[in-house]
Amino acid sequence: MAFIDHIRACNAHDMSRFRPFRTAGQTAGWIHDDFIATLARRSDLFAIQPHAVTLNRELATPEQRSKALDPFLRELKDEGMIKGWRDERYPVTPRWRDEPLMTMERAAIPFFGVRAYGVHINGHVETRPGSNDGLQVWVGKRSRSKPTAPGKLDHLVAGGQSFGVGLMDNVVKECAEEAAIPESLARTARPAGFVSYVMENEEGIRNDVLFVYDLAVPADFVPVNTDGEIEDFYLWPLERVFETLTSGEDFKFNVALVAIDFLVRRGLIPPEDPDYLAIVHGLRLDAAAL
Amino acid sequence: MAFIDHIRACNAHDMSRFRPFRTAGQTAGWIHDDFIATLARRSDLFAIQPHAVTLNRELATPEQRSKALDPFLRELKDEGMIKGWRDERYPVTPRWRDEPLMTMERAAIPFFGVRAYGVHINGHVETRPGSNDGLQVWVGKRSRSKPTAPGKLDHLVAGGQSFGVGLMDNVVKECAEEAAIPESLARTARPAGFVSYVMENEEGIRNDVLFVYDLAVPADFVPVNTDGEIEDFYLWPLERVFETLTSGEDFKFNVALVAIDFLVRRGLIPPEDPDYLAIVHGLRLDAAAL
Repeated sequence: MAFIDHIRACNAHDMSRFRPFRTAGQTAGWIHDDFIATLARRSDLFAIQPHAVTLNRELATPEQRSKALDPFLRELKDEGMIKGWRDERYPVTPRWRDEPLMTMERAAIPFFGVRAYGVHINGHVETRPGSNDGLQVWVGKRSRSKPTAPGKLDHLVAGGQSFGVGLMDNVVKECAEEAAIPESLARTARPAGFVSYVMENEEGIRNDVLFVYDLAVPADFVPVNTDGEIEDFYLWPLERVFETLTSGEDFKFNVALVAIDFLVRRGLIPPEDPDYLAIVHGLRLDAAAL
Repeated sequence: MAFIDHIRACNAHDMSRFRPFRTAGQTAGWIHDDFIATLARRSDLFAIQPHAVTLNRELATPEQRSKALDPFLRELKDEGMIKGWRDERYPVTPRWRDEPLMTMERAAIPFFGVRAYGVHINGHVETRPGSNDGLQVWVGKRSRSKPTAPGKLDHLVAGGQSFGVGLMDNVVKECAEEAAIPESLARTARPAGFVSYVMENEEGIRNDVLFVYDLAVPADFVPVNTDGEIEDFYLWPLERVFETLTSGEDFKFNVALVAIDFLVRRGLIPPEDPDYLAIVHGLRLDAAAL
């Protein structure tokens, strides 16, 4: 399996079956044809047009929109359509750092194709700081009970970005929950870019931006999962990450992209690779639109 | 001046005034309307159509194409249209690592809007390897006699990628010429991605991919320019690079992009910046097309 195949897998979608989700004059997301009949039950909330779904324009403020939509989403949860309800509010923010048009339960996000943000942290141990010699990377194994990608390999720490939480505060929170990393260490995580993709799934579409952080942890640090989401951690030489990525789909689909970005930045994928431009460019597909 | 302004400056173009340069059934470049009358003098070489310029299809091999075009390009040099003749052959390669469709004198490349490749090297000194504490960056001041961007700030080493030269061999060659860096040190340069842009200029269009390398040099290393292209070198704290980029255009236009990429990868541009997605995505504009 080539690196570019992981990128293609995360960007598999047929946009001809989606129409824009319009809110307050902006494209807030993308809605699949299969979800239209469900939305059509609520003509008080949604105007269904051939080329768009528009949220009722009379809902004039973010609060009004969020409050009007929420009972309907809970209905869909009770009917079993929206699975894995999290009680986490995500901002509906077509452009990063704009004021949200509203907030929405995390589990509903892919149905509306709303762009979601997250933080992914490459936890690594450097024998010779700055060098790849002896560089090791912490890899988590996701719990088999996770709704998404059970049993797949993961980063040391990763998490979604809820409404009203700062990025670094989220890094600190997730570091504590997922790997028992003390705050003083978590705050040394260094931003290093982002990865994005647009991936169709059975619910709709994942339209994700993952902010990437590198966190150098001491050689004697051992992560301990505290929220049950990770069942085991391994400390791997960077080369093993490379080999695992090129041999199959053991890594969770989007974790593979962040790991490939790390390999690019650390120089393990050579620019002589015929796919090099496609790989490096492909790690941030579609971000221009948002 | 914001980081995004440097990216916009490198991507200023009006493609409505360009038409594809077709060679052997492929789009090999982009030709400005103002260059058409010159090409029309040679109907044996070029077929001028409203929406394309096509190189004579009877030129069946890369050698035939290169040989047929060269005397015409030398005519344009003698007429003073093509300036700064280098006697360097660039590959005409619409896709990285494909066999070239032909080779072309470097000075003619922007007239035909052919994608050009180069290597740019961030030379830095790390007080604490892997950390930004005390990190310093070598900055060159370009000779005032350079045809492009005279007197502007530059990288420790940068150079164009000629036909038939390997990337790392080019790194080694340019390191020796531009900064008297010994081969053993030059070979420790680590690839870290690429930067690309499409910038209209008075000759046509620069359609460039710059492969980015990081080179950690010892604290006692002092670069010496040997080819007259750099008149001075400075060792700056990384923060001074940041401040110089945000205060104006002292850096050469494309060096600014590679420096911004370095700041992103080292975490000096925070993801909380409202422009963050546009900056990180914008550093690699248009590469998908090639």
